[in-house]
Amino acid sequence: MEYNFLNIIDILGTIAFAASGAFSAMERKLDPFGVVILSFVTAIGGGTLRDMLIGNTPVAWLRNEVTALVILATAFITLFFGQYVKQFHKTLFLFDAMGLGVFTLIGVEKGLQMHLSPGICIALGTITACFGGVIRDVLLNNVPLIFQREIYASACIIGGSLYLLLQQTPLNDDINAILAIIMIVVIRIVAIRYKLMLPRVYENRM
Amino acid sequence: MEYNFLNIIDILGTIAFAASGAFSAMERKLDPFGVVILSFVTAIGGGTLRDMLIGNTPVAWLRNEVTALVILATAFITLFFGQYVKQFHKTLFLFDAMGLGVFTLIGVEKGLQMHLSPGICIALGTITACFGGVIRDVLLNNVPLIFQREIYASACIIGGSLYLLLQQTPLNDDINAILAIIMIVVIRIVAIRYKLMLPRVYENRM
Amino acid sequence: MEYNFLNIIDILGTIAFAASGAFSAMERKLDPFGVVILSFVTAIGGGTLRDMLIGNTPVAWLRNEVTALVILATAFITLFFGQYVKQFHKTLFLFDAMGLGVFTLIGVEKGLQMHLSPGICIALGTITACFGGVIRDVLLNNVPLIFQREIYASACIIGGSLYLLLQQTPLNDDINAILAIIMIVVIRIVAIRYKLMLPRVYENRM
Repeated sequence: MEYNFLNIIDILGTIAFAASGAFSAMERKLDPFGVVILSFVTAIGGGTLRDMLIGNTPVAWLRNEVTALVILATAFITLFFGQYVKQFHKTLFLFDAMGLGVFTLIGVEKGLQMHLSPGICIALGTITACFGGVIRDVLLNNVPLIFQREIYASACIIGGSLYLLLQQTPLNDDINAILAIIMIVVIRIVAIRYKLMLPRVYENRM
Repeated sequence: MEYNFLNIIDILGTIAFAASGAFSAMERKLDPFGVVILSFVTAIGGGTLRDMLIGNTPVAWLRNEVTALVILATAFITLFFGQYVKQFHKTLFLFDAMGLGVFTLIGVEKGLQMHLSPGICIALGTITACFGGVIRDVLLNNVPLIFQREIYASACIIGGSLYLLLQQTPLNDDINAILAIIMIVVIRIVAIRYKLMLPRVYENRM
Repeated sequence: MEYNFLNIIDILGTIAFAASGAFSAMERKLDPFGVVILSFVTAIGGGTLRDMLIGNTPVAWLRNEVTALVILATAFITLFFGQYVKQFHKTLFLFDAMGLGVFTLIGVEKGLQMHLSPGICIALGTITACFGGVIRDVLLNNVPLIFQREIYASACIIGGSLYLLLQQTPLNDDINAILAIIMIVVIRIVAIRYKLMLPRVYENRM
């Protein structure tokens, strides 16, 4: 993976995830400490769970102060300038989609490094990208959003699978990563634009 | 432990736990992705928590594709043939009880391998068997069922203790394991048949 | 750290945290097993999460039967003599504050031993002291108390920072630890006495 380019997307994704956590906390009228914690768990929860599952400890954010500072700054900016930040919801959505993409690939890569099987690598990618939001929702006492018909985790599964497929081609890894991230971003944009959802296949069967 | 025999029970238990997670998710109208995730956390949540607690990483399911495939298949079958699967609720209850038994013993064994003390081994067995259900309930925004008077974790504690006691006898380990599992299954059947519950000892004291 | 002295505070804190978990469970009418589990997660949840984050496994309570026995005893005493125990709520509050202090310092120390940066050490201390309560609240289906304006985690952050600052002075570590704990206890007492809370800075901005 090309680290300079992907690192920037990583940080943009972290900002978007942290802002999403902060907004959720503010909607529930949590105190400033709660807002900071929700920013943190949303931004680093998925990667933390992944690192604990594979035994990659101390988990990533403990060794990377930049991530912690970015999240802290995002939390406080959202806290004090919430109205203003909200105007950028389209930008935040785009960052979020890019974050989703890059977090998925980071998770898949970690699985590959540990020689885990392809399906498990995709699962690790999806966990990395999606479980921060799951923990955020659990802490706020909501049933996790991503279990409720939105195309979110599905985008990660498709993007992760594409990345593994592309690795069978002679294309170089940088290009594979970028193509997979673009795929995830496009799926997210299309899903939101056309309000696509997963079907409830069992509707009439229960 | 006799692996061929216990492996089969392990898979039957995994199926029962996964089906229970899928049904809970479907009752709450989660999307197909949510149903799959709930199947997973119910089936492997307890063992995953145990492995993270003792540092046995990558945790078991990451290294075992069979488990993942069994869960995935169970989730989709439950999703598409829910009504049909429901007719086997007695079979599923029996699988569940057997799973409870075998998961408890696997947890106790892992503790013994790490030379942890007997009480802690029993705790690990109970966590292995019961915490998948706890995580399922937390994700669905319910207070965990097993904290609410049903004889469930108690069966694991009794079965785990019996296993440790039997190890002081000259009986061989296979027989000990089978006896402890039978004990757990019998307690579950008796508890459900006679609607036994833990007493609320403090009812008039608060 | 002076272990004899701090060990006693550690046990007193464990008792207070376990009692708090037991009371929360009893208020929600959980069964005796639920009461025991809630005592456990409240008392050891924070340290367990910290140990899993830094890879210090098997996590502390698995290797320390004294902790487990103290929690078990506290849970049963609270269960059977709840009314009586409640009369000591001021003592329990003091134990809780001391526990908060000593758990924070234990977490900070673990971070220092792993050569993590100061901000991360303070985060680990706060997680150690506060996340048992967070897990308790999540299991009981409540939005965690500490996210709701009470001065609780803030006391840990201030106390942890003070400890790190004092280490730059020629004072010995025992004295630093005791001063930091006293700071945390005093902040808690003042916060409760004068009903201090974190401001909702964003009140008029959403």
